[in-house]
Amino acid sequence: MAILHHYPLAASSRLIRLQCGEYKLELDLVTQLPWLRDEKLLALNPAGELPVFEDETYGVISGARVISEWLEDIVEDNFLMPEKAGERAEVRRLIDWFEGKFTLEVTRPLLRERVIKRFQSGEAASSQILRAGLANAQIHLGYVDWLAGQYSWLAGPDISLADLSAAAHISVLDYFGDIDWRRYPEAKLWYMKLKSRPSFRPLLSDILVGMPPASHYSNLDF
Amino acid sequence: MAILHHYPLAASSRLIRLQCGEYKLELDLVTQLPWLRDEKLLALNPAGELPVFEDETYGVISGARVISEWLEDIVEDNFLMPEKAGERAEVRRLIDWFEGKFTLEVTRPLLRERVIKRFQSGEAASSQILRAGLANAQIHLGYVDWLAGQYSWLAGPDISLADLSAAAHISVLDYFGDIDWRRYPEAKLWYMKLKSRPSFRPLLSDILVGMPPASHYSNLDF
Repeated sequence: MAILHHYPLAASSRLIRLQCGEYKLELDLVTQLPWLRDEKLLALNPAGELPVFEDETYGVISGARVISEWLEDIVEDNFLMPEKAGERAEVRRLIDWFEGKFTLEVTRPLLRERVIKRFQSGEAASSQILRAGLANAQIHLGYVDWLAGQYSWLAGPDISLADLSAAAHISVLDYFGDIDWRRYPEAKLWYMKLKSRPSFRPLLSDILVGMPPASHYSNLDF
Repeated sequence: MAILHHYPLAASSRLIRLQCGEYKLELDLVTQLPWLRDEKLLALNPAGELPVFEDETYGVISGARVISEWLEDIVEDNFLMPEKAGERAEVRRLIDWFEGKFTLEVTRPLLRERVIKRFQSGEAASSQILRAGLANAQIHLGYVDWLAGQYSWLAGPDISLADLSAAAHISVLDYFGDIDWRRYPEAKLWYMKLKSRPSFRPLLSDILVGMPPASHYSNLDF
């Protein structure tokens, strides 16, 4: 069975778990703590970043964007990347948005302040950074709400990697109860559809010891 | 003719100029100053980032990784992305390295300190940030030197997008004379090969007003 080196609350890792779930590829999940320098992980991926996919047949593939494109290349009957070049570009633009902009402005600073600092050094979170990250999140959620109101899915009429990438990031915010869903009705409908897919179930049972999720986190009706 | 909104010393913009050069796609270059908020650019790309490709037939495609993948999708006789899934993953891993890690640790802080601060506010560069960026660059160049010593090109026996991405970033450092090439003999041979390709020529004649390039920047024998 393929191994995925991941961290449960890392959005990039969640993207690959969701994609493998959609394609019914079973994964042996190995948790890595992103604040520790792990020599074995560095030997697999010199960039030292998660997720890392390790498979006897295919070798080692590192990085969410690289693994997700690679899975689309190898999975027969794949359906998460459209056929047409222009539509593929729109899916990739949104993945770029979440893996790039959203990560830098929201997911990474929030995870760092709340989780990494606490486990790494016990240092308190900076309320200024938390406030900035949450303010950024509102702007991004407004954009997701707008996109979700245009089509059935974020990049068009069909579900794509863009939805999985966005949902992976948003699910981490939702774990911490950061989202006032009443403000984003279209995004809420979109997220409900995703949450009720079998691929999402394993993510909804993730529990960080000492940091339980918000009460509605695993509810399909929230 | 297609338009590329770019900034001459932005490595991500250079990647697309190189790729279009390899495929002999002519571009009408429109310079955008990355430190100004340009409403027209934001209308084209809500992420507000360069490069942005604009074409009458194809519409608007934004972001270096998205444009480069899209060009590979539409160009017949493309040769910058290998056929096999595993080899494609290696090319994408290296693009991820340069567009992600190298950008955050080297290209972005150095450009910000040297160019953006100067033109935006006239503020002096922080010598501490410059030192850190240059120290990071040494580590990355050591890795490029090692990769270049393994095969003819960074991702294998054939030239690929990985070479263009790496060269785009490294060419910006070289503009400022930041690289002691004697320390990286394999990387130097690799960079000489790239520099002598016709696609590279336009980059070698870029000159920033008030900030001329290092004396060897445009020499093919350096």
